[in-house]
Amino acid sequence: MVTTRLPSAGFSITIRVSVTADASAIGRLTTCVGESGAIVTALDVVDSDPVGVTVDLTCDTADSSHADQVVKALEALPGVNVRKVSDRTFLLHLGGKIEVSSKVALRNRDELSRAYTPGVARVCMAIAENPGDARRLTIKRNTVAVVSDGSAVLGLGNIGPYAAMPVMEGKAALFKRFGGVDAWPVVLDTQDTDEIVAIVRAIAPAYGGINLEDIAAPRCFEIEERLRELLDIPVFHDDQHGTAICVLAALTNALRVVGKEISQVRVVVSGAGAAGTAIMKLLLRQGVGDIIAYDRPGALHRGLPDLTPSWQWLAENTNKTQYAGDLKGAVRGADVFIGVSAPNLLTGDDIATMADRSIVFALANPDPEVDPRAAREHAAVVATGRSDQPNQINNVLAFPGVFRGMLDAHAEEFTEEMALAAARAIADVVGEDKINPTVIVPSVFDARVAPAVAAAVRAAAEGKPVPPPPPAAEPVSLDTAPPAVL
Amino acid sequence: MVTTRLPSAGFSITIRVSVTADASAIGRLTTCVGESGAIVTALDVVDSDPVGVTVDLTCDTADSSHADQVVKALEALPGVNVRKVSDRTFLLHLGGKIEVSSKVALRNRDELSRAYTPGVARVCMAIAENPGDARRLTIKRNTVAVVSDGSAVLGLGNIGPYAAMPVMEGKAALFKRFGGVDAWPVVLDTQDTDEIVAIVRAIAPAYGGINLEDIAAPRCFEIEERLRELLDIPVFHDDQHGTAICVLAALTNALRVVGKEISQVRVVVSGAGAAGTAIMKLLLRQGVGDIIAYDRPGALHRGLPDLTPSWQWLAENTNKTQYAGDLKGAVRGADVFIGVSAPNLLTGDDIATMADRSIVFALANPDPEVDPRAAREHAAVVATGRSDQPNQINNVLAFPGVFRGMLDAHAEEFTEEMALAAARAIADVVGEDKINPTVIVPSVFDARVAPAVAAAVRAAAEGKPVPPPPPAAEPVSLDTAPPAVL
Repeated sequence: MVTTRLPSAGFSITIRVSVTADASAIGRLTTCVGESGAIVTALDVVDSDPVGVTVDLTCDTADSSHADQVVKALEALPGVNVRKVSDRTFLLHLGGKIEVSSKVALRNRDELSRAYTPGVARVCMAIAENPGDARRLTIKRNTVAVVSDGSAVLGLGNIGPYAAMPVMEGKAALFKRFGGVDAWPVVLDTQDTDEIVAIVRAIAPAYGGINLEDIAAPRCFEIEERLRELLDIPVFHDDQHGTAICVLAALTNALRVVGKEISQVRVVVSGAGAAGTAIMKLLLRQGVGDIIAYDRPGALHRGLPDLTPSWQWLAENTNKTQYAGDLKGAVRGADVFIGVSAPNLLTGDDIATMADRSIVFALANPDPEVDPRAAREHAAVVATGRSDQPNQINNVLAFPGVFRGMLDAHAEEFTEEMALAAARAIADVVGEDKINPTVIVPSVFDARVAPAVAAAVRAAAEGKPVPPPPPAAEPVSLDTAPPAVL
Repeated sequence: MVTTRLPSAGFSITIRVSVTADASAIGRLTTCVGESGAIVTALDVVDSDPVGVTVDLTCDTADSSHADQVVKALEALPGVNVRKVSDRTFLLHLGGKIEVSSKVALRNRDELSRAYTPGVARVCMAIAENPGDARRLTIKRNTVAVVSDGSAVLGLGNIGPYAAMPVMEGKAALFKRFGGVDAWPVVLDTQDTDEIVAIVRAIAPAYGGINLEDIAAPRCFEIEERLRELLDIPVFHDDQHGTAICVLAALTNALRVVGKEISQVRVVVSGAGAAGTAIMKLLLRQGVGDIIAYDRPGALHRGLPDLTPSWQWLAENTNKTQYAGDLKGAVRGADVFIGVSAPNLLTGDDIATMADRSIVFALANPDPEVDPRAAREHAAVVATGRSDQPNQINNVLAFPGVFRGMLDAHAEEFTEEMALAAARAIADVVGEDKINPTVIVPSVFDARVAPAVAAAVRAAAEGKPVPPPPPAAEPVSLDTAPPAVL
């Protein structure tokens, strides 16, 4: 039932191999790699002499243990000597993925005296007299803190602030690449709610927005709520709101494909953590009338004792029939299944019991709630969080444009109106004439997405009409797509 | 007694003026600016027609009120219309002075899958298993937090975190320009010692060092001391240690000029705040035997009641004769006066009472403790903190190289040995054959300084011999000096 992982660039390795230089030597190497299930993506000669050759074989593997198998297979070949194995992902991370650059030249005394003392003192005094000028005269105008306590990083769990850094740096790189936003990782060596709130409140003057990231539920709800009260800049928990926006965008187009109205569908959501709760709140706001939420206690309903406040809220505001049975029973006859929970909870047979033209978003990563190939035999539209499947629902579609729009609007808070506008903008980028069961969301490399989301969010922040969707683009080559903003 | 301020680029303005185009029109404008005491640095024609011309006059002024006078003088000329006045310092600050850049390309799916999910997960797990790898695989390796609560910014006082930002951004720009260090401003909306300590402890995992900046004494001492205990990365309060290093470097060369031994001189220090206290501790460590410290209670000595802990320490460890008289009395016969306090405490006549071949460092900014021109009539060597006087003692000489060296050494703390090594490195850059009463410290643009300081600090951190000073350089043009590291 576990979906087979395919070789990918995320597990690309470079193997330095010396081999006796007979006519078929290189061929034996590449054949061996291929037979091991990996894909050779580059072959570079490093050194040679009359009897031998040393090459760097770069190949995509499926995961770390598969990479080990490939290396062992090469080592077992006669006349082959494996010198070194480099992991391209680790090489790329050496020294970190972001840096601080100066926007001002400091070549001579004149430039120094404007950017620093004595000139800078006048700028300081201007801000002291009018703190609102901080948005004009400092980096606050374009800067977002990516805040994490490392308690729920990707699917890796509570790995702490040090190990969370590569994700937060990557997020900062994505913010710049797709939204032109300067984002800075703030990883915290504390998981105490009060302390996190106090820290973020205190560091906020430098920032125009706060992106909470990979903080475990239910702590993340309280942190977000209290910070929203305390701060005059937007607070956005990407695991909640970024996911909710992308799911609503995908659902909007999926419903177009199957020809159903959002107000008429019955939705089952597996996983009522940060993402699931935010998804359900946004779906309710958009007019979904019938939702059943699942988490550890089962179907959330009013009869359950000792629920957390957010589960209690869901028990009171969803599940209109107060269904208390199991998940398989709940999906029977449902129009939409949304999973943000755990692998392999359902089978193709379960999907077969759903309503006609059903929609399945199985977003647990890397292994979805149901094998997407099995789901596609019965559902009309299937989406996952995986990049090697059609319809990848990826938060990169939302957060760069959302913050771009909020910063441009000088927004003081993130609102549900912005979320609805962003979801609509993402959905509309695909274009009515391009939608089909395998294309319900745009590519993350579609350069139209972030500007469209930013314009929609800015309009929502300023109470103006949301601008029309961008014109359809020519098909974009993933390798040559220019950066949205750099 | 107040030193006259000269026009400088820190107060450069651009005035857009329209004038009737008779033959001498432009000449009247530049003459008017010159007679107002400003210096025309550029004249650009913006527009013209048969009867008139519009020009942008860029000129250095002495300060904001002088700039206003220049504009008023132009407005009073017949046939002249001032259209707009732009302040080049403010223009330079629009949107802030630093940005976050991605070091990794994110052009296509392969690059995305290495820098972010799914590839990044392996890097996270490697760090979770071995937290020491954070220095190798994240920005921690090269990143410093510039932390301020905005309580003692430049000479401007307690202007708070928003108004402190331009200084901290400037500092970050200097860190990159002179040391290749990625520094990030962390301004805090709290001035509570416990809270500041807790915040810096919590955010530390992302950083390889902490630079405390512009935090008022005596709070700064406790914050620094507690953070040193808590953290496994260096904590450096630039106002203390950066200043102390530069003063010791300057004093080392000044003593070479006057031919005195550091162990033999009597030193009077005015100002026992953050800078003064650190200066005195470093001078004691370097062998100065006789120091008298002044601050609000007068000469610090054991008889004074209710001293702060740091003043009490000074009372017990300096002032060996337990002198209790006034500052003017203390400088009589002293070899060295160091002021880090307030303007115009002494006159030239006071300096005349010092020992032969006396040394005066009057570092209060912008107005020194004694007019440097009056001091030079009696002292053998005079230094200030001003960029328009010879012998500017500027922390830019120290902090970029100090942190470069600590980061390269993976240092876990900042030590007095590093401070002594850094001071010696700065002093030695000048070169025995180049030292004279007007050149006791290198130019801040001397590209040899930061690498020499970094090498000395790294050697001190690793317990190795400090490398020899760099070879003498050809005279460096301030306008063409290449960046030390970019």
